[in-house]
Amino acid sequence: MNTILLINGPNLNLLGTREPEKYGSATLKDVEDAMQEQCESHGAKLLCFQSNSEGAIVDRIHQAKTENVDAIIINPGAYTHTSIAIRDAFLSVSIPFIEVHLTNIFAREAFRHHSYLSDIAKGCIIGLGVDGYRLAAEFFLTRQ
Amino acid sequence: MNTILLINGPNLNLLGTREPEKYGSATLKDVEDAMQEQCESHGAKLLCFQSNSEGAIVDRIHQAKTENVDAIIINPGAYTHTSIAIRDAFLSVSIPFIEVHLTNIFAREAFRHHSYLSDIAKGCIIGLGVDGYRLAAEFFLTRQ
Amino acid sequence: MNTILLINGPNLNLLGTREPEKYGSATLKDVEDAMQEQCESHGAKLLCFQSNSEGAIVDRIHQAKTENVDAIIINPGAYTHTSIAIRDAFLSVSIPFIEVHLTNIFAREAFRHHSYLSDIAKGCIIGLGVDGYRLAAEFFLTRQ
Amino acid sequence: MNTILLINGPNLNLLGTREPEKYGSATLKDVEDAMQEQCESHGAKLLCFQSNSEGAIVDRIHQAKTENVDAIIINPGAYTHTSIAIRDAFLSVSIPFIEVHLTNIFAREAFRHHSYLSDIAKGCIIGLGVDGYRLAAEFFLTRQ
Amino acid sequence: MNTILLINGPNLNLLGTREPEKYGSATLKDVEDAMQEQCESHGAKLLCFQSNSEGAIVDRIHQAKTENVDAIIINPGAYTHTSIAIRDAFLSVSIPFIEVHLTNIFAREAFRHHSYLSDIAKGCIIGLGVDGYRLAAEFFLTRQ
Amino acid sequence: MNTILLINGPNLNLLGTREPEKYGSATLKDVEDAMQEQCESHGAKLLCFQSNSEGAIVDRIHQAKTENVDAIIINPGAYTHTSIAIRDAFLSVSIPFIEVHLTNIFAREAFRHHSYLSDIAKGCIIGLGVDGYRLAAEFFLTRQ
Amino acid sequence: MNTILLINGPNLNLLGTREPEKYGSATLKDVEDAMQEQCESHGAKLLCFQSNSEGAIVDRIHQAKTENVDAIIINPGAYTHTSIAIRDAFLSVSIPFIEVHLTNIFAREAFRHHSYLSDIAKGCIIGLGVDGYRLAAEFFLTRQ
Amino acid sequence: MNTILLINGPNLNLLGTREPEKYGSATLKDVEDAMQEQCESHGAKLLCFQSNSEGAIVDRIHQAKTENVDAIIINPGAYTHTSIAIRDAFLSVSIPFIEVHLTNIFAREAFRHHSYLSDIAKGCIIGLGVDGYRLAAEFFLTRQ
Amino acid sequence: MNTILLINGPNLNLLGTREPEKYGSATLKDVEDAMQEQCESHGAKLLCFQSNSEGAIVDRIHQAKTENVDAIIINPGAYTHTSIAIRDAFLSVSIPFIEVHLTNIFAREAFRHHSYLSDIAKGCIIGLGVDGYRLAAEFFLTRQ
Amino acid sequence: MNTILLINGPNLNLLGTREPEKYGSATLKDVEDAMQEQCESHGAKLLCFQSNSEGAIVDRIHQAKTENVDAIIINPGAYTHTSIAIRDAFLSVSIPFIEVHLTNIFAREAFRHHSYLSDIAKGCIIGLGVDGYRLAAEFFLTRQ
Amino acid sequence: MNTILLINGPNLNLLGTREPEKYGSATLKDVEDAMQEQCESHGAKLLCFQSNSEGAIVDRIHQAKTENVDAIIINPGAYTHTSIAIRDAFLSVSIPFIEVHLTNIFAREAFRHHSYLSDIAKGCIIGLGVDGYRLAAEFFLTRQ
Amino acid sequence: MNTILLINGPNLNLLGTREPEKYGSATLKDVEDAMQEQCESHGAKLLCFQSNSEGAIVDRIHQAKTENVDAIIINPGAYTHTSIAIRDAFLSVSIPFIEVHLTNIFAREAFRHHSYLSDIAKGCIIGLGVDGYRLAAEFFLTRQ
Repeated sequence: MNTILLINGPNLNLLGTREPEKYGSATLKDVEDAMQEQCESHGAKLLCFQSNSEGAIVDRIHQAKTENVDAIIINPGAYTHTSIAIRDAFLSVSIPFIEVHLTNIFAREAFRHHSYLSDIAKGCIIGLGVDGYRLAAEFFLTRQ
Repeated sequence: MNTILLINGPNLNLLGTREPEKYGSATLKDVEDAMQEQCESHGAKLLCFQSNSEGAIVDRIHQAKTENVDAIIINPGAYTHTSIAIRDAFLSVSIPFIEVHLTNIFAREAFRHHSYLSDIAKGCIIGLGVDGYRLAAEFFLTRQ
Repeated sequence: MNTILLINGPNLNLLGTREPEKYGSATLKDVEDAMQEQCESHGAKLLCFQSNSEGAIVDRIHQAKTENVDAIIINPGAYTHTSIAIRDAFLSVSIPFIEVHLTNIFAREAFRHHSYLSDIAKGCIIGLGVDGYRLAAEFFLTRQ
Repeated sequence: MNTILLINGPNLNLLGTREPEKYGSATLKDVEDAMQEQCESHGAKLLCFQSNSEGAIVDRIHQAKTENVDAIIINPGAYTHTSIAIRDAFLSVSIPFIEVHLTNIFAREAFRHHSYLSDIAKGCIIGLGVDGYRLAAEFFLTRQ
Repeated sequence: MNTILLINGPNLNLLGTREPEKYGSATLKDVEDAMQEQCESHGAKLLCFQSNSEGAIVDRIHQAKTENVDAIIINPGAYTHTSIAIRDAFLSVSIPFIEVHLTNIFAREAFRHHSYLSDIAKGCIIGLGVDGYRLAAEFFLTRQ
Repeated sequence: MNTILLINGPNLNLLGTREPEKYGSATLKDVEDAMQEQCESHGAKLLCFQSNSEGAIVDRIHQAKTENVDAIIINPGAYTHTSIAIRDAFLSVSIPFIEVHLTNIFAREAFRHHSYLSDIAKGCIIGLGVDGYRLAAEFFLTRQ
Repeated sequence: MNTILLINGPNLNLLGTREPEKYGSATLKDVEDAMQEQCESHGAKLLCFQSNSEGAIVDRIHQAKTENVDAIIINPGAYTHTSIAIRDAFLSVSIPFIEVHLTNIFAREAFRHHSYLSDIAKGCIIGLGVDGYRLAAEFFLTRQ
Repeated sequence: MNTILLINGPNLNLLGTREPEKYGSATLKDVEDAMQEQCESHGAKLLCFQSNSEGAIVDRIHQAKTENVDAIIINPGAYTHTSIAIRDAFLSVSIPFIEVHLTNIFAREAFRHHSYLSDIAKGCIIGLGVDGYRLAAEFFLTRQ
Repeated sequence: MNTILLINGPNLNLLGTREPEKYGSATLKDVEDAMQEQCESHGAKLLCFQSNSEGAIVDRIHQAKTENVDAIIINPGAYTHTSIAIRDAFLSVSIPFIEVHLTNIFAREAFRHHSYLSDIAKGCIIGLGVDGYRLAAEFFLTRQ
Repeated sequence: MNTILLINGPNLNLLGTREPEKYGSATLKDVEDAMQEQCESHGAKLLCFQSNSEGAIVDRIHQAKTENVDAIIINPGAYTHTSIAIRDAFLSVSIPFIEVHLTNIFAREAFRHHSYLSDIAKGCIIGLGVDGYRLAAEFFLTRQ
Repeated sequence: MNTILLINGPNLNLLGTREPEKYGSATLKDVEDAMQEQCESHGAKLLCFQSNSEGAIVDRIHQAKTENVDAIIINPGAYTHTSIAIRDAFLSVSIPFIEVHLTNIFAREAFRHHSYLSDIAKGCIIGLGVDGYRLAAEFFLTRQ
Repeated sequence: MNTILLINGPNLNLLGTREPEKYGSATLKDVEDAMQEQCESHGAKLLCFQSNSEGAIVDRIHQAKTENVDAIIINPGAYTHTSIAIRDAFLSVSIPFIEVHLTNIFAREAFRHHSYLSDIAKGCIIGLGVDGYRLAAEFFLTRQ
């Protein structure tokens, strides 16, 4: 496991400032820095990306193929429930990925219960806050 | 009420030229100018934005927070029915907004009857043509 | 625009006294008086009617035809979601009408999301409290 | 067969004046007179009733029991699709009835395709205009 | 009205012998003879056809066009609920038809509540036994 | 607990005469008299009301507020399944109520399985015949 | 009425300790003792059973047949919504039973609105807290 | 037919490299070149566009109007199933278009069976691989 | 590609005479002749078959196996939406086929949106009129 | 048990040649011969019929009545899921029948999970290959 | 085929005593004895098990693996429709099994039409009473 | 965090022996031992429990309350999708828990996509094999 790509989808740029009682007070920068450190301690590299645009996320996944990314950790935000294009991007590049959600999507509106990505993901970590990113990275860095 | 932001979603750049029998002959520029005047007459400022891109609309809503926008009037066009990302953007910034539709969406295809925004909007004005924008502004400028 | 008819459906006789935190403290009489004044200032006449009976509302719509009413503003209350008879009354008399709801029906129980009137209405104003009546009247009195 | 009761539901008081291209130009009075004659020619009596009120129709069906009505012909109008109370009234009095619709309800909005009365009716005559009333009466007067 | 075609679909050849408590004891021959007489008394001709085969019924409807049939009375039996081919045959020849059902299909299994023909029929007569055929003919022979 | 209001909805005026094998032979008068006695024995007053009209029931619930009724026992009959107006009347007056059904509505047609009142009721007593009224009153008179 | 069996399903052993604001502070022992007394005062015997196991409840219902139990009062807890085995046990032994729910299941999650037992129960008492047990017993002990 | 616009949606930039066993080994460049030649041989011009962004595709369709494009061939990729904005763009410009899918979408996941474009397309060619583009062009170039 | 079989289903015998504004004025004979020529120009043979009977079409598909047909072009007409028997016939003989529809079935009644054949077809050509047959043949004759 | 009729529906004429890995290599002739022998060994007669035509199967069931057939074993093939006409034929003749499927229809496409015959059959034997026919015959020949 | 395990699920311990008109008068002991004999006559051994507990049935299926059971015949009773745990137990041990139902589950309540076991069973025998067990055993003992 | 309880539901006793290509070759004992060590290294205690019985799992959760368990990690196996009783047990004891699934339930049968526990869980870890248990423990032991 040399290179992990972390993708955050729409509205996650506001992490730490938006509804902190729901999402916690760590900013996206905080999360990325902590994961950077975590990856480096295992001799791996972390690439980070955030966008509010569905097309840009598709582009970024394509690019990962050319960068020989070994694994992707993605919090697709709202695109979880609406984007088949991102699903198809993952199908196209065949890089294993874990889908992370900060909040418990099953305790929210019904339209958040379905994901266009889950069935093709390696796995999902849901509802564990920013710890979810850390656990996903740990999985890729240490799985047996 | 100092600053109102008017957002128009996909295809509304064609207003006045596209199917005028359905949407009227006023262009988007005409609408924005009239509302500008309406707001100024109440001592308020109007910001205007149109985009065909879901991500750009999310970005614009985020920016409104930093500009201390007091209220948003949005005609989300087709994204009304498909964008959870825009919904989440509104949830993130907590700025009151009114959802406006020029045509009577309930008299059109079934997939236009559901909105991902309505339940978190302050209210909706539907089917009253470009007068809908004016009435929405009037609400924010004069509500009791 | 000479004559506008304002119809309020079931339970709206309690306006101002029932759940004021949800519906405001203005009584139905207050609303009717304010709209009376608004119409007169545009040289128009306002007729007012409230009933808890579906059949009586059907009768009142029929009568409007014989009175040469030009437009109807209706808050159908609970009959919004259950009355095809009122729908048929509107189809029979062919008088343009706006459907007004004080609260945001899309933020309430699922059975309040469907209206038997919306698709044949001129338009809908939803969630803007008693201001909704005023904006509806303004539309008929000033639309371009 | 001594006594037949003809019940017309909401908006049918406007028959002949409302959308004549759809419902024909015969008024309800015309229809009742013609059926009166038809019944008398078979030595039977016709009682006629129209109301826009669901409760009044329930009351009228109850009353039919005390008048020894032998059969009911009902065009329930919009209450066809929404009234379980009228269904229960028929279940209570156990008088055979035919459900008549002037227009072809299966060629109209989906919510008009279901009737709360059809499955407990003797039968249905649909889409044959005011001739439907005549055929229903003929059935009760001449069936073999 | 010179020529009427009577079509009976699958299993109706057993009329009078199959479940007489439900369908009556008149045979299909009895029904056809009585209707023959009824038509002749109005100076019209009756053509009769029965088949258990969907394709044969389609063929027969096509043939009606070449015979200048003025109206069709059809009891499509089970094909009511499953045959789009017969629907298309009617759409192709544009001959007005009435759909007749001997029993009250709304009081039977749910899959009998939907018809592929009703919305394009002139009308429907349902549940009135073999009298339904007679009333349908009377409609075509005497409608006003 | 000083005053209890008993409301019976459509067709319950026929109690004791309509389908006695299903509803028992006690008339509505019998039930009201027995409950009157039951209430008086606990020092409470019983008000009784029956109507076949949805609007009249709404009116009666409003009136209860002005009479300081402490609790309502309602058998809404068919309006159970179709009336949002009665639901809203209860929401408006905030008087606790128990919903009573004489027969087991879950053993009847599917459309009787849903109630627009149950979720806002204090509770429901279903299928226990006229004893249901007695038990409901006992609850209000003796609950711990 | 000589013998009544009271069955409480899963999690009801925690009654009085679990969410007392929702279920009250009376323990299951308290309830059983009070009902014991109530039955004895009418010369009847009460048997009590609680289990968290679906199979054990099926067994207990079978055993009731051999004990000549006259009536069962059951609060099936979560098995209300998931157990066809318990339904079949009741169908097998043909002992009349009342289904009791402490809370208003119609005001809770949608999956609690359906019961596999209600349509074969004598009746249901829902939402009246532990008084529901008492009223159910009273019904069996005193029904007319 | 002077000018045809070929639009390819998300992930089709990877054509020929992504899952070649499913999509074939021809690259998008190969396809565009072959179609260029095909159009020129009929004296027509081909414009080509690919984007992973929904908004960019909407923009491109708008631009087609100003370029007097006569026909559009579009493979909307994943946006087929999720984009009402692209549908509205086509409705706005009123240029006839054919929807092409390389694979048989009806043999894939259920969410790929519905298209927001098909009902407003001139037609669809599905499952015929890159030959589908060629046949679509041939239709526009040679239809009778 | 030596032998292609063209199958036309119910009502397509009327092609050119039935609703020409929808289906064009070319007769089935015209279409078959043109395709005959098209096939011969590529050194292939065309077999033609039309039937209004589902069973006859099943038989014809079976027969194709014994004739070493290489490909089938089928317009199944109404049986598209109702015939699993024809689906099974194709599964039995394993001959590749293209499903052709003259009109845009997605722009018609909802029951025409589903096909029992599409997911096992090589592909579909929809809405391109009689050109659809020609393009389907071209695919089999020239695909790369 | 004197006479048993074996009916095989569409595509079963190909038994043994079509997908032998799924249906086995025994031909329909093999099956019929083996069952013939089985019946004769119990002193009963076997009649055999296969058709790809729905109408012909209906006809054959009618004929069975006149032949005093005691029991029918039917593998309705694809008509299992689409033919109400065959259902009605069975209802008309009232001969007990067993429905046999060679493959496990519950392990195939969802549309094969529903049968229009099962609920009126004596029973069903599913997924046991051609042994299913033998077991069905054994049931009729030896049931206790 | 050396060892067959017969599992009967909830309420089947009452066989012969419960609703004998529906299930017959043979007791479970009778059935097991007859099958014992049937198996022995083919040189095979029969193990028998009945439980009302889902967990106990899961345990018994696990145990079968350690006993080298060759085939299982199971009548899962009510757990047919509710137990995924039993499904998973079968998936875990990979022993072929036949699902038997005494009554015709398709002629009963809709919730009995779906089985969590059927699609992974070797096959199903439904509605043939206790003969179903015998035929299932015969299949395993004599299949070709 | 002093005490963590690990609960494994039905069929998980077979871990390591059942479908190892899907579930891996580690036995439940292996998993429990590794987690024991992991907890002890953080100074916490691990309690382990496995059962195939829904009722026993409910009992175990109740017992956890009396043992002052701080957190529960549960792989509910098949009961995930069918047990409301386990849900209610968690609601009763109010101990935070993480739901773990070894396989990706979203890539399996549709009935495995819904969980009765997820919305009340702290979070979910899905599809990461036995590493999921480890990550869940790590969350409770190290969350920030």
